[in-house]
Amino acid sequence: MVYITRRETFAAAHRLFKDGLSNEENLKLFGKCSNPNWHGHNYILEVVVAGEVNPATGFVLDLKELKEIIHKHVISKVDHKNLNIDTDFMIGLNPTSENIVIAIWKQLEDKIPAGKLYSIKLYETENNYFEYRGE
Amino acid sequence: MVYITRRETFAAAHRLFKDGLSNEENLKLFGKCSNPNWHGHNYILEVVVAGEVNPATGFVLDLKELKEIIHKHVISKVDHKNLNIDTDFMIGLNPTSENIVIAIWKQLEDKIPAGKLYSIKLYETENNYFEYRGE
Amino acid sequence: MVYITRRETFAAAHRLFKDGLSNEENLKLFGKCSNPNWHGHNYILEVVVAGEVNPATGFVLDLKELKEIIHKHVISKVDHKNLNIDTDFMIGLNPTSENIVIAIWKQLEDKIPAGKLYSIKLYETENNYFEYRGE
Amino acid sequence: MVYITRRETFAAAHRLFKDGLSNEENLKLFGKCSNPNWHGHNYILEVVVAGEVNPATGFVLDLKELKEIIHKHVISKVDHKNLNIDTDFMIGLNPTSENIVIAIWKQLEDKIPAGKLYSIKLYETENNYFEYRGE
Amino acid sequence: MVYITRRETFAAAHRLFKDGLSNEENLKLFGKCSNPNWHGHNYILEVVVAGEVNPATGFVLDLKELKEIIHKHVISKVDHKNLNIDTDFMIGLNPTSENIVIAIWKQLEDKIPAGKLYSIKLYETENNYFEYRGE
Amino acid sequence: MVYITRRETFAAAHRLFKDGLSNEENLKLFGKCSNPNWHGHNYILEVVVAGEVNPATGFVLDLKELKEIIHKHVISKVDHKNLNIDTDFMIGLNPTSENIVIAIWKQLEDKIPAGKLYSIKLYETENNYFEYRGE
Repeated sequence: MVYITRRETFAAAHRLFKDGLSNEENLKLFGKCSNPNWHGHNYILEVVVAGEVNPATGFVLDLKELKEIIHKHVISKVDHKNLNIDTDFMIGLNPTSENIVIAIWKQLEDKIPAGKLYSIKLYETENNYFEYRGE
Repeated sequence: MVYITRRETFAAAHRLFKDGLSNEENLKLFGKCSNPNWHGHNYILEVVVAGEVNPATGFVLDLKELKEIIHKHVISKVDHKNLNIDTDFMIGLNPTSENIVIAIWKQLEDKIPAGKLYSIKLYETENNYFEYRGE
Repeated sequence: MVYITRRETFAAAHRLFKDGLSNEENLKLFGKCSNPNWHGHNYILEVVVAGEVNPATGFVLDLKELKEIIHKHVISKVDHKNLNIDTDFMIGLNPTSENIVIAIWKQLEDKIPAGKLYSIKLYETENNYFEYRGE
Repeated sequence: MVYITRRETFAAAHRLFKDGLSNEENLKLFGKCSNPNWHGHNYILEVVVAGEVNPATGFVLDLKELKEIIHKHVISKVDHKNLNIDTDFMIGLNPTSENIVIAIWKQLEDKIPAGKLYSIKLYETENNYFEYRGE
Repeated sequence: MVYITRRETFAAAHRLFKDGLSNEENLKLFGKCSNPNWHGHNYILEVVVAGEVNPATGFVLDLKELKEIIHKHVISKVDHKNLNIDTDFMIGLNPTSENIVIAIWKQLEDKIPAGKLYSIKLYETENNYFEYRGE
Repeated sequence: MVYITRRETFAAAHRLFKDGLSNEENLKLFGKCSNPNWHGHNYILEVVVAGEVNPATGFVLDLKELKEIIHKHVISKVDHKNLNIDTDFMIGLNPTSENIVIAIWKQLEDKIPAGKLYSIKLYETENNYFEYRGE
């Protein structure tokens, strides 16, 4: 069993916002992260797949193929986008990094052609990271 | 003459947008960077001050003081903000990184209590950097 | 279950020193790391908390709150300090990074308001890292 | 139980190449990674050892000792080498990072004087990482 | 005048080799860097262009355009290549990083559509960097 | 003219302290940086040499040779040392990073066998850098 990781980046806008609360209540709950005019991040995404090494190729999975899957199902929907408005798989969700990693897991879980999705890790800033392993 | 650098970060939303052009014209000119729903970045800002070393302290300038000046005049106006809407010193400017480094220079130029402002460097992404030296 | 990480840094002096041994014996055992005049590091600390996502906030735990807890119980006691002399929770311990990660775990274990402390990771240098998971 | 990590780097040439296939077939399977004239990487290697803290030293294992073991059994055989030709423990293996991490594990598994080898992690580029834990 | 930087990476094999000397003489002069079976690096390239900000766009030069120029004239000729054999603009040159930065400068100098080429910076390893400014 | 850089690191203890002032006055002037029990840093040092490329080697200067010079004249005197007490070339100086870069310049200025010393850059923390160019 080898764990292979592909790192990607995307630049997105968002605001933390809980449906059903007013702007004032959201600002009280989330502080500057709920700025009604948005803010944004250079997110760093790490996708980890665990699997047996294929003796025909020496790969668990060709990372070029994994890169294309991540771009098709995630990056194209989040890069230079607004996560609250533009991203279909985030609609109705408060875009905390916790909710983003779970949503990205669901996007990718059944798209991995070899091995199994093991972990989604997201760096929101250089000091704040989040990981989901499907548990 | 010693060059001292203080590094700060801020998370902001923006879109590239030239006044007087329509959304369509802006999208044609700036591509995904002009997404009407915004996108954002974790910007990294480096402020460089050049000066003689003060023999009384061994400092060009106390970096704690420089940090406070940068926070008061720049970070408080850009962190968790929308650079097109929220930032007074960017109003009327297309928020390209070129325009941001020049605007930050103007914010700080006459606020440095010792030495002289030498350079403003801004990392928009890990692959794109911009520097202005007041030339 | 999402794993959230807060990264902090601190600058501290220390020397490796085993009580009951002479300076010479300590220098023989620990080499330059036992310099009687001390040396120091920019330590990087990563605190990982694992927990369920609170549906009211989309957080496992507000990272601002976690940051304050880490500052109150750890950073205020180690930053710009001497780990052998100044840090109450290290008194009587040889300040190897192994002993530091265990001691920081004990400082934080019962202070986490939601979720459970999962891991303490410490980078002593860019080449040497240490992790403790309470096992 | 503390997990200690030593990070090392090495610069090596390689090409992906499956024995029994022609150059053309290898190029079809592996693309530019099978360039017959080779290419290369600055690999980053992380070796993780898990063990109890020795109360006599406060160490799981002296990282200077671990560094020497890694240099003797791995770095001396891969740094400024061609992984397909020069490295005895890679002979007959297609030098994918998956195969390299497993081979390095086998090199080090029975050389660790205290604690147990827990993980071998290899960064082939800043975007592609690989980990093996002996499972 | 704003200085804009585009960062790119490439993975290449090379060996230091002076024409007219034997393998033995080259090994004596260049040590392990002259391994006849090659070694390689993940090079990091930074291209800096200096120019006035175009008031119509807020750009010195669209970094997407600069990226395409660098890929066409440099990256396509060095990535996953052997710098001694495969790279037309390095033929006949000993591929030290000093010679590479000068050769890349010559490749790009007259291809910059706005502003002027200011600097070529190359990281061979995380500890060794090289810069050429056309002086 | 090519600029070549060698990056080195060292771990040292220090305190900011101006001779002739009391502990209290130093603490008032320098805050936590004057802790009488010391603190420390992982300093990162970059030494830049500028020179013509030697056509016999393709080098400005062999970086292995530059590394040895830096180790002999700087690293051996500062790594795992106390900069206030142990380092001969810092005796009598308040070890601010400004004073350290100037002192390292003086240590190395006349030891460079080819090209000329161009810059000494020192990172005290990931947010504070200092550069001296002999001006």
